[in-house]
Amino acid sequence: MKPVAAPLDRSARTGFSTNSLDRMSEKRDDEALIEQFKHDPAARCVIIAGDLPILCRSAENLSALHAMANAAQFGTIHEVAFLGIDAAGPVFAVQLDGQVADTQQGRDDISVIDLRTIAVQGLVEAEAVGILGQAKSLMYWHQRHRFCSNCGAPTRVAAAGWRRECDHCKGLHFPRTDPVAIMLAVDGNRCLLGRQARFPQNMYSALAGFIEPGETVEDAGRREIREEAGIGVGRVAYLATQPWPFPASLMIGCLAQSLSSELDVDRTELEDARWFTIDECRMILSNTHPQQILCPPTMAIAHHLIRAWAIEGVNP
Amino acid sequence: MKPVAAPLDRSARTGFSTNSLDRMSEKRDDEALIEQFKHDPAARCVIIAGDLPILCRSAENLSALHAMANAAQFGTIHEVAFLGIDAAGPVFAVQLDGQVADTQQGRDDISVIDLRTIAVQGLVEAEAVGILGQAKSLMYWHQRHRFCSNCGAPTRVAAAGWRRECDHCKGLHFPRTDPVAIMLAVDGNRCLLGRQARFPQNMYSALAGFIEPGETVEDAGRREIREEAGIGVGRVAYLATQPWPFPASLMIGCLAQSLSSELDVDRTELEDARWFTIDECRMILSNTHPQQILCPPTMAIAHHLIRAWAIEGVNP
Repeated sequence: MKPVAAPLDRSARTGFSTNSLDRMSEKRDDEALIEQFKHDPAARCVIIAGDLPILCRSAENLSALHAMANAAQFGTIHEVAFLGIDAAGPVFAVQLDGQVADTQQGRDDISVIDLRTIAVQGLVEAEAVGILGQAKSLMYWHQRHRFCSNCGAPTRVAAAGWRRECDHCKGLHFPRTDPVAIMLAVDGNRCLLGRQARFPQNMYSALAGFIEPGETVEDAGRREIREEAGIGVGRVAYLATQPWPFPASLMIGCLAQSLSSELDVDRTELEDARWFTIDECRMILSNTHPQQILCPPTMAIAHHLIRAWAIEGVNP
Repeated sequence: MKPVAAPLDRSARTGFSTNSLDRMSEKRDDEALIEQFKHDPAARCVIIAGDLPILCRSAENLSALHAMANAAQFGTIHEVAFLGIDAAGPVFAVQLDGQVADTQQGRDDISVIDLRTIAVQGLVEAEAVGILGQAKSLMYWHQRHRFCSNCGAPTRVAAAGWRRECDHCKGLHFPRTDPVAIMLAVDGNRCLLGRQARFPQNMYSALAGFIEPGETVEDAGRREIREEAGIGVGRVAYLATQPWPFPASLMIGCLAQSLSSELDVDRTELEDARWFTIDECRMILSNTHPQQILCPPTMAIAHHLIRAWAIEGVNP
């Protein structure tokens, strides 16, 4: 049975969230089946060189999916993982060395482009953006987990790329996803946006931080806003989640009711944080703010938090 | 400023979620301050031996917090982490060897009890249960990350116990929290509960699974219910989150609208899964089900999912 399309989800409106592959997670330990999938003439793959996707380029368009049999032509394959199947057959992720991105850059049948640009510019269809995100996070985990964190011995890949095993201490290691609370604090007709020094010029976004051991989503967001902006937060309302493959986060987006308005900005974390009125937010969303203030693009959950509050009337 | 109490959160009704320590995360790299906190006469700690908390026992009650100066009497300290401060002073987590739990078991001034029992039976106040959960997840991570997953070299602790650093490859490693989608699928006046073979006899719960790279919460829950019970799911409504320190998960609880009713149970994952009527769920919650069917205790988010739907009328 195929996964159910879910237009009702706000989560499904964010970048990297559209992915209808049937992951067949219960079949990952069936080595014979996975081998059969690999050699299926219909098998396709997304290819990551270092942390850059390699796209197929034709006169008409760019595509994320290569024939599986073509992957080896680009260089030595470091890792292969089974991502799932769709109506056309199995799909794998293939990790190549980062140098491949340089050596293959000149070819006219491929494009090597960072995933953020692919997603922001919509260079491939939404479905493929989701698959690339899945592949990038998984492959990043493999690259950073070649050794056992428990005993230091080398690990080997298992479960079609969804587990690493240590033969020395028998430790099992699974892909890592870091939950992040991203929260738009609202104070009447104003909301709180901040910017980090590394952001593009004039860009402001909702505040965000990793959820720590022992925290609920709500409390993690409260802590973040208190620590970074000195603002207390009361009620919190969940809006959506977004898989965020930079490198492997799960953004959990909420609107939050502020309990104070006097800002005390932590300048080591944020270059600036300010209250923006609902009218300003509408101008920001339509790219007409008089000071050219920008917010993240539609592929980012922060955009949807601001839009839900400023345009759709959602409140915490 | 202290964190804001949040009675409006459903998350705050779950076990391990109550924790008003100010984590002062921005101060963790201030080694002089952390040292000063450690030697503060008001400093207290929770103590974990292996994976078992050591509680203080008096004639009147059990307490999770020990005077910091007393921690070393129990045995060699493997790890110390700064958890935060409250009105009474700083609080640390102290990791001892698992053998300490055996050698100290006979003392009449302490009790060595597993955290699940502490939480289910409410052996210490809710606030202390939250602090113990924070400590247990963090200390589990340290125990499993003494080596660098990137290069295999030993790592050393930094940032007051919130980072491990590799001197060889310069890798930085942060505590891990695994997001889990836990979802109660609803079909009119029935909901779907399942049981794993390891559950206590007659206990059924909502279905749950780890959220994978590239998935939204909603899609992860849909996949889980499809893979384990053969049921399609449409609309999904967030209810609450719960930090779950067995060993280090973030449970994200939702109600889900089922799109089919014919069960196809994956017997390798589940011993059984069934539809229960709303009347049956009310009997389960009040411990009066004619077949003695049980659900998880009030400290578990699964309990709150069932209660929200069967008693409070919340629907996906």
